[in-house]
Amino acid sequence: MLKNDQLEQWDRENFFHPSTHLAQFARGEAPHRVITSGKGCHITDREGNRLLDAFAGLYCVNVGYGRQEIAEAIADQARELAYYHAYVGHGTEAAITLSKMILDRAPENMSKVYFGLSGSDANETNVKLIWYYNNILGRPEKKKIISRWRGYHGSGLVTGSLTGLELFHKKFDLPLAQVIHTEAPYYFRRDDIEQSEEQFVAHCVAELEALIEREGADTIAAFIGEPALGTGGLVPPPAGYWEAIQKVLEKHDILLVADEVVTGFGRLGTMFGSEHYGLRPDLITIAKGLTSAYAPLSGSIVSDKMWKVLEQGTDENGPIGHGWTYSAHPIGAAAGVANLKLIDDLDLVTKAGENGAYFNKVMREALSAHANVGEVRGEGMLCAVEFIKEKQGRIFFDASEKIGAQVASALLERGVIGRAMPQGDILGFAPPFCLTRAEADEVAGKTAEAAAQVLG
Amino acid sequence: MLKNDQLEQWDRENFFHPSTHLAQFARGEAPHRVITSGKGCHITDREGNRLLDAFAGLYCVNVGYGRQEIAEAIADQARELAYYHAYVGHGTEAAITLSKMILDRAPENMSKVYFGLSGSDANETNVKLIWYYNNILGRPEKKKIISRWRGYHGSGLVTGSLTGLELFHKKFDLPLAQVIHTEAPYYFRRDDIEQSEEQFVAHCVAELEALIEREGADTIAAFIGEPALGTGGLVPPPAGYWEAIQKVLEKHDILLVADEVVTGFGRLGTMFGSEHYGLRPDLITIAKGLTSAYAPLSGSIVSDKMWKVLEQGTDENGPIGHGWTYSAHPIGAAAGVANLKLIDDLDLVTKAGENGAYFNKVMREALSAHANVGEVRGEGMLCAVEFIKEKQGRIFFDASEKIGAQVASALLERGVIGRAMPQGDILGFAPPFCLTRAEADEVAGKTAEAAAQVLG
Repeated sequence: MLKNDQLEQWDRENFFHPSTHLAQFARGEAPHRVITSGKGCHITDREGNRLLDAFAGLYCVNVGYGRQEIAEAIADQARELAYYHAYVGHGTEAAITLSKMILDRAPENMSKVYFGLSGSDANETNVKLIWYYNNILGRPEKKKIISRWRGYHGSGLVTGSLTGLELFHKKFDLPLAQVIHTEAPYYFRRDDIEQSEEQFVAHCVAELEALIEREGADTIAAFIGEPALGTGGLVPPPAGYWEAIQKVLEKHDILLVADEVVTGFGRLGTMFGSEHYGLRPDLITIAKGLTSAYAPLSGSIVSDKMWKVLEQGTDENGPIGHGWTYSAHPIGAAAGVANLKLIDDLDLVTKAGENGAYFNKVMREALSAHANVGEVRGEGMLCAVEFIKEKQGRIFFDASEKIGAQVASALLERGVIGRAMPQGDILGFAPPFCLTRAEADEVAGKTAEAAAQVLG
Repeated sequence: MLKNDQLEQWDRENFFHPSTHLAQFARGEAPHRVITSGKGCHITDREGNRLLDAFAGLYCVNVGYGRQEIAEAIADQARELAYYHAYVGHGTEAAITLSKMILDRAPENMSKVYFGLSGSDANETNVKLIWYYNNILGRPEKKKIISRWRGYHGSGLVTGSLTGLELFHKKFDLPLAQVIHTEAPYYFRRDDIEQSEEQFVAHCVAELEALIEREGADTIAAFIGEPALGTGGLVPPPAGYWEAIQKVLEKHDILLVADEVVTGFGRLGTMFGSEHYGLRPDLITIAKGLTSAYAPLSGSIVSDKMWKVLEQGTDENGPIGHGWTYSAHPIGAAAGVANLKLIDDLDLVTKAGENGAYFNKVMREALSAHANVGEVRGEGMLCAVEFIKEKQGRIFFDASEKIGAQVASALLERGVIGRAMPQGDILGFAPPFCLTRAEADEVAGKTAEAAAQVLG
């Protein structure tokens, strides 16, 4: 490994960090931290701090850190053939094998996988394919994409538009015109606090139908959603939500894109969130869990229904004008093959369900009773604690108090990484699937301590 | 390595290849080829065919295949820490070191590097930063991006809009409204065949000025261009082009984005194309040559001028709402550090200039005299042969004859990979920088044979 004493200076002078206060970082007012190694659920920084990473990086290191099986697969591929492209029918054994392994695990009626690098670029591909599909079908007006407020689908221009969070829109002129948003399926934050869960689902459906009515079904191509909301708050859907939404989509011939970047490959205790909640998607977005982040790789899984039209499109128009130089990059493909094998060998999907149930239980036990905890919710290896000022009447804190960020800081001081989610005082957890019971207990106990420190 | 007998079936049944005729591939009518290893300028496929890759993958394997120094750097990083994110001031020694190495090599007045994965996502970042910049400066209307016809800047929705090639627009509803195009600096294809190079530059400038006049300078944020056109035809700019264009941009306070995905890190025999042609960019896009494709990594290099405004933006608005999970991925960063060291150690930038001059010379000698060769052009390690029906009056072949593709096929039969570029009968070459004189002679000789086979 490289060793160097000027790292902090180099960092502040040269490195543009994502999602960072650029001015504070450059001036040395915001922390710089160099991570040097990881093992299981723990990472270690250059100063020797060992932290329990209860967010698995950015909910991506699903199998945990330091898996030498994946590292060796990457090393072998790098030595044999680090790169060749996948254009015009070219491929590598790793990429072809991985495409087969993905389809073997995918929900039924899926046909092919297009490889990208990030969830953002996979959703970019999805929108291109949706527009192409409707052009081939002779429906040039059917192009708008419906997303939900609080959905997260990327950080690009169109994908950041799909994302329904203010942080990703403000000062960037997003959302762009092709994207429209509907109600988030976020029962705890329903406007009408008197609504039952069933009434709230009916309200979400009515909002969607009104939007389709307003825009015209013949202008709407697709609906995109995460099976359970991710960055928007880690929110499992209310009971019956997806079945009711899909009825509306089917009635209006609107495609469904399941964004499974967070939920794909086991996070909910099932291989896909679609399976978990009964989605019947036309496209599935995959990324993070596909390689457990050991190398960048994403994908768009295309259904039989859409694939048939794409074939018709190339018969009519020649080769499809879409490609990334690094589509199906051999290093990512080798990491993906090794990662999916490891998940099978260690039965990690089942474990995510079991360990996640335990983790959610101890989190509820440790936090639900606190006067400022409005909700502890989760599913599988996702858990969120939402803080509020007063339970009676569900009164939220003012955003300027930054309660979520304060609790996250207090937790970090105790050696545990949780994540303050945007838009609300929501502390999120998405640990590696191998989280032990002792580690789950530690996260729960320290989160309760951190909450007590900040809120009494 | 994985070994398997059903690879072809798996490939056709599961793998959505980029830039491929999907229906023909799925039906088994288009070739499937599995690449298994590479060394220097050669790759080997599963059938044992050894091919001289005179396009370096997709002009990205600049240092050549099989460099164990880079493979070992990837392997070491994978074993130590395959992943941690770079959000909120986090980083790894590899990513910080690489940011310093990039700035040390960049043109003057550049400040920071934001890491992505592909040239497409780096240009996506660039557009976001440009819009943010003008919002912070209180110029909300100054947002349009001017690109050139035949420019290549990506395959996404906005980046595919920046790209000025029909293949990437057709059936995808591109370009989007925020992007407008101006004349390509492609002297050989000038409309008025009587124009001198100087007159043609004046014409390009007049076209640009007329576009700015028509749209209003206060609506135009930036101009993006490759120092030498890449996928649009491998076309070095006419003499004086960039100086004249930059005068217009500066007059109207329009930012310049130099897309150096192809030209960055040595392909023209200089570290950057900006240096080669005297560009003074506000943003530089980098990708391919940054890692020689051994792992996916891209970047946006941000100038001092823009960085100051970005700092002001975060002081006013808090952390910037832009991030990719895999920004500054450690595996890509380790590959980048090893790649740039190797380029230094072997003096490959100088070699690209020297070997490129020799390669272009032998290509001209072998092909210029052919009755159907309209032009052999190039710079450094780029070379294009453009075929035409008749030299007299510069009459092009009809596209349906697919002359470029036919010559590329005939060349492949001889064991050499060139690339038929879109929109014209243009055979492109962009070999690894380590191309030997014997290999250059072989490419030139076999290209002449292939041309003779197809065209007589």
